[in-house]
Amino acid sequence: MIDLQFVPQSEFDRLQNLQINPEVRTAIFATCCRINTLYAIKRAGSGHIGSSFSSLDIVSWLFLNELRRPQDIYYSSKGHDIPGLYAVLIGLGLLESDRLHALRRLNGLPGHPDVSIPYIAANTGSLGMGISKAKGMVKANRLLGKESQIYVLTGDGELQEGQFWESLQSAANDRLHEITAIVDHNKIQSDTWVEKVSDLGDLERKFAAFGWYVARCDGHDFKALAEVMTKLKTVRDRPKIVIADTIKGKGVSFMEHTAMTPDQRLYRFHSGAPDDEAYVKGLSELIAAGNELLQQVGAKPLTLESLPVPERQAIAEPQRLIPAYSQALLERACKHPQLVVLDADLVLDCGLIPFEEKFPERFFECGIAEQDMVSQAGGMALSGLLPVVHSFACFLSTRPNEQIYNNATEKTKIIYVGSLAGLLPGGPGHSHQSVRDISALAAVPGLQMLEPSCPAEVALAVDYCVDRTSQSSYLRLVSIPCEIPYQLPTDYQLEWGRGIALTEGEDAIIFGYGPVLLPQAYYAAGLLNEKSNLTLKVVNLPWLNYVDLDWLKQTVQGYQIVFTLDNHYVTGGQGDRIASGLAALGLSDKIQVKQFGVREIPQCGQNDEVLKAHRLDAESLAADIAQAIRATHTLRERQSKI
Amino acid sequence: MIDLQFVPQSEFDRLQNLQINPEVRTAIFATCCRINTLYAIKRAGSGHIGSSFSSLDIVSWLFLNELRRPQDIYYSSKGHDIPGLYAVLIGLGLLESDRLHALRRLNGLPGHPDVSIPYIAANTGSLGMGISKAKGMVKANRLLGKESQIYVLTGDGELQEGQFWESLQSAANDRLHEITAIVDHNKIQSDTWVEKVSDLGDLERKFAAFGWYVARCDGHDFKALAEVMTKLKTVRDRPKIVIADTIKGKGVSFMEHTAMTPDQRLYRFHSGAPDDEAYVKGLSELIAAGNELLQQVGAKPLTLESLPVPERQAIAEPQRLIPAYSQALLERACKHPQLVVLDADLVLDCGLIPFEEKFPERFFECGIAEQDMVSQAGGMALSGLLPVVHSFACFLSTRPNEQIYNNATEKTKIIYVGSLAGLLPGGPGHSHQSVRDISALAAVPGLQMLEPSCPAEVALAVDYCVDRTSQSSYLRLVSIPCEIPYQLPTDYQLEWGRGIALTEGEDAIIFGYGPVLLPQAYYAAGLLNEKSNLTLKVVNLPWLNYVDLDWLKQTVQGYQIVFTLDNHYVTGGQGDRIASGLAALGLSDKIQVKQFGVREIPQCGQNDEVLKAHRLDAESLAADIAQAIRATHTLRERQSKI
Repeated sequence: MIDLQFVPQSEFDRLQNLQINPEVRTAIFATCCRINTLYAIKRAGSGHIGSSFSSLDIVSWLFLNELRRPQDIYYSSKGHDIPGLYAVLIGLGLLESDRLHALRRLNGLPGHPDVSIPYIAANTGSLGMGISKAKGMVKANRLLGKESQIYVLTGDGELQEGQFWESLQSAANDRLHEITAIVDHNKIQSDTWVEKVSDLGDLERKFAAFGWYVARCDGHDFKALAEVMTKLKTVRDRPKIVIADTIKGKGVSFMEHTAMTPDQRLYRFHSGAPDDEAYVKGLSELIAAGNELLQQVGAKPLTLESLPVPERQAIAEPQRLIPAYSQALLERACKHPQLVVLDADLVLDCGLIPFEEKFPERFFECGIAEQDMVSQAGGMALSGLLPVVHSFACFLSTRPNEQIYNNATEKTKIIYVGSLAGLLPGGPGHSHQSVRDISALAAVPGLQMLEPSCPAEVALAVDYCVDRTSQSSYLRLVSIPCEIPYQLPTDYQLEWGRGIALTEGEDAIIFGYGPVLLPQAYYAAGLLNEKSNLTLKVVNLPWLNYVDLDWLKQTVQGYQIVFTLDNHYVTGGQGDRIASGLAALGLSDKIQVKQFGVREIPQCGQNDEVLKAHRLDAESLAADIAQAIRATHTLRERQSKI
Repeated sequence: MIDLQFVPQSEFDRLQNLQINPEVRTAIFATCCRINTLYAIKRAGSGHIGSSFSSLDIVSWLFLNELRRPQDIYYSSKGHDIPGLYAVLIGLGLLESDRLHALRRLNGLPGHPDVSIPYIAANTGSLGMGISKAKGMVKANRLLGKESQIYVLTGDGELQEGQFWESLQSAANDRLHEITAIVDHNKIQSDTWVEKVSDLGDLERKFAAFGWYVARCDGHDFKALAEVMTKLKTVRDRPKIVIADTIKGKGVSFMEHTAMTPDQRLYRFHSGAPDDEAYVKGLSELIAAGNELLQQVGAKPLTLESLPVPERQAIAEPQRLIPAYSQALLERACKHPQLVVLDADLVLDCGLIPFEEKFPERFFECGIAEQDMVSQAGGMALSGLLPVVHSFACFLSTRPNEQIYNNATEKTKIIYVGSLAGLLPGGPGHSHQSVRDISALAAVPGLQMLEPSCPAEVALAVDYCVDRTSQSSYLRLVSIPCEIPYQLPTDYQLEWGRGIALTEGEDAIIFGYGPVLLPQAYYAAGLLNEKSNLTLKVVNLPWLNYVDLDWLKQTVQGYQIVFTLDNHYVTGGQGDRIASGLAALGLSDKIQVKQFGVREIPQCGQNDEVLKAHRLDAESLAADIAQAIRATHTLRERQSKI
């Protein structure tokens, strides 16, 4: 177990008081922020290092030298570089220094920007919205008679999103010179090189064609940044954009994208914490760099503080759905030459590398352009292919929502696969916690939505979507490793709208799906048995927007209390289908439905914390189920006495 | 009552056999198609003349001279110019000529493209998807070893959509030279001049910057079109785009946008049928033009056929919600200087002209850029304004779905107003029939969704959204004039999650909302009373994603059968909220819920036809309600005998 080191507030205070020029001060400050960013991410166990490091010199320059009035605002449109921004805010004393230790923790610092945190000006992390929000801010300020400068950082992969381009022209038409956009052009997006994923073409020419003032500089050269910013202040007739050429992972030699070997496809430090070795090595490089700068100005070296890595509960026998999906997809693809795969810069997260390697000509990397991807899939399906379309569920269900519906009206067959579904992982925060996708797509006509609960069911689900249905489908996949305490029978088959019992029980029945919450229900059944002498029937119902009424009627027979359990907002989730189904059946005995699920904006934090905060962990479920059963019994007893 | 004239098939056959050059043949053909387009739209009572006329020369040229192989495809991305395309297909004998008389009728020719119609290659009408679909088609064809040419027409207002720009760069990267996009650059979008709504800037420069081969020509000059198309065939290294300068309404002098007076803000012939006078005058101009061309080549003049205008049932005392909204908005705006209005090129349809005229500095025309608009509203709300955001419900709920959620996570207050909500008007077809918006947004945290049922309730709803709630809201507005047989009490007030009875009745209860279906339920109650001696309680529940359980419990007391009625897909509509609410209450008597609503892709047709086709008209509802009540009684009797 290693200790983690961070730059304490006293050192930032010392830096503030050094009599040095702005460029050197910013360089030392940024290096200290890199140390703290590395600390916070290593401590959190996840977070985006590469992007934080590529943007940190720019962000540090802005905060130390440009943002001099309260009404001047900076925010990052890509948002996942926020560990770097937190380090800057803490370094400047704008955020309590204790928060550094609480990245991606409950009530700590969220994994993507949230305006509940001081100096966070906008919720971002869903890509492409930054310029639009800035336009709204400037128009509001103009109307309210305020003069302000808005600095918006964007990614470069982010420029593949249509909304970015949608937002440009009218900003120029309206001469919104108060906006300065800065492209953190670090050349690498989530998976790999931007030019390999979906090349951006000639950015300077494009921005100029949209009527923006365009500048370009080295985003790690403070003199150059200073000059550009000075020049931009003189431009008052149009919005401005700076293409800042940066290095992903800047500051730690082996994290810098320029250190990638020619045959290395994937950049290793986009997200996720470094291992111990990389942490120690990276930290020592950063300390050395900081001390060298301090020495140059005659100041003493850095004094760091340290804390141990907090222990994290390991999952006993983690099971993973994404590799199971990879394999099942590959197997189906071997049998179906018309099956093609589309991806939106998440080839690794969506488990598509095996397919891509085996069938490169049937693999279409679309970049971060979900609307374009989905409509392309529509065109492919009209032309005789079977497209399987991938992204994170939070993006796939919403950004191309109208495009998915449009495809559905053509009555072709398309398979949509949304990964990172549900409340967990809890670290990235609400922009990535997909708890609204069922609702957003449930009414799409002919779309069969399903979520498998274990690797074996993933294989069945892929088989179903490809071979056993003529309809389009939405396959919802949890991405985190899960401990799964149940096994499905070896002869288990998917039947549309029907499920299977995982436990037997007499006091109540609970319906759920997926490898995150079904295990919680399963464990809750055990706890109820142990502690309250109650038995709970747990049913795996993998179908998200349809329930077979005959099966439902038979399954709830004899139960007076029915629980539903959604890894999703209660509104529009599976529970609504079950409740509506029971209401349609006409309930001959007194029967009550209680829906568990997400009822507020998801909390950010470690997985166990987040489950507990939403009362969806086994203990909370067991307690709430026991209470509900007792309340029902009491009511019945009271009624039977009347 | 006037007769309507059309060019019969025999005349098109005669034209085919004339020995004339392609330019003249196409000119005569296009003129005949304009006559038939005018006929079809006048007969249908609605449809897009201006856009059909601006594109008809291009479309005629393509079909007569370029599309020579079955695998070569043309479609329009904007889609609302389809009356012109139908006329071309019919003129060429590719569609049965009888269909000309069935534009926007049930089982006729849909108001926007649908692939169920021969030679319609893609469903469009939701803007910005055209190039993306073409990319999918080309990639599929390449994979399948087919060589094809795909011609895609776009609007110019359509180019404000982000997806259009999202789709461009990777088409160039992949050298998809099979795609020829043609911009029908008629300078006018839905409301008025493109340059006034949201200027497009230097299009040639922009397209070139995205790596496309760019050409430009007069879209009504067949020689120029011929030359451009010949030139484009030699370009094999990138996709191609032609900016075709056209005139909206081309062919009828007073419909041409160039005839607009300097002070005329709105173009009058974007959508909707011309009045009798405009029809007669326009027709005579077109006939004269056709005959002049025929005379020039020594052919005899056109012989037209005629049919009377079909009678249409007039609405006795039509009530309109949009003007009521206009007025209520203006009243609130006078009291709230921070209230601002955002629009997406639907200033007329959304009733925003009074506001814009009164408060020009608080009105923000965003163009057809819903994502940008919604995120701008987010920025404005963060900066202290109260944004009221407008578009058609079908677009507002889906295109910026992720942006609306993102705003919600910032916990600011924003009012979204979706017009043209629900199944009707039935003419535009499924791209515009918004029957999925409740479902798509119901789970957005803190979003209160409501639909008023009459002008008086509109005023209360606006008051509620602006002054009586601190939460964001989605105001769903029906745009068609309706006959409304009920009146709300003068002291009626909106209470969140609660409704009000419009009729009393003992045999069953039905919950509904809005001025389209509540009147049907009301009339159904009358029919049930008359014909079946059954009494039905009709309840107006204006809240779409929340129901107050105390009120619900009290309201359903004593009823054994509960009907819900959604102007929306059944899945995810208000009925789900009521069913889930009843299930949560726990039902002590046998109670059954039957949900009425849309269960398949909406039919296109006249309003009465469409209601009937979905069994949502008063007669169908009365029949289905009577049957359900009888079935329940029979079951009860059978059970009570056991």
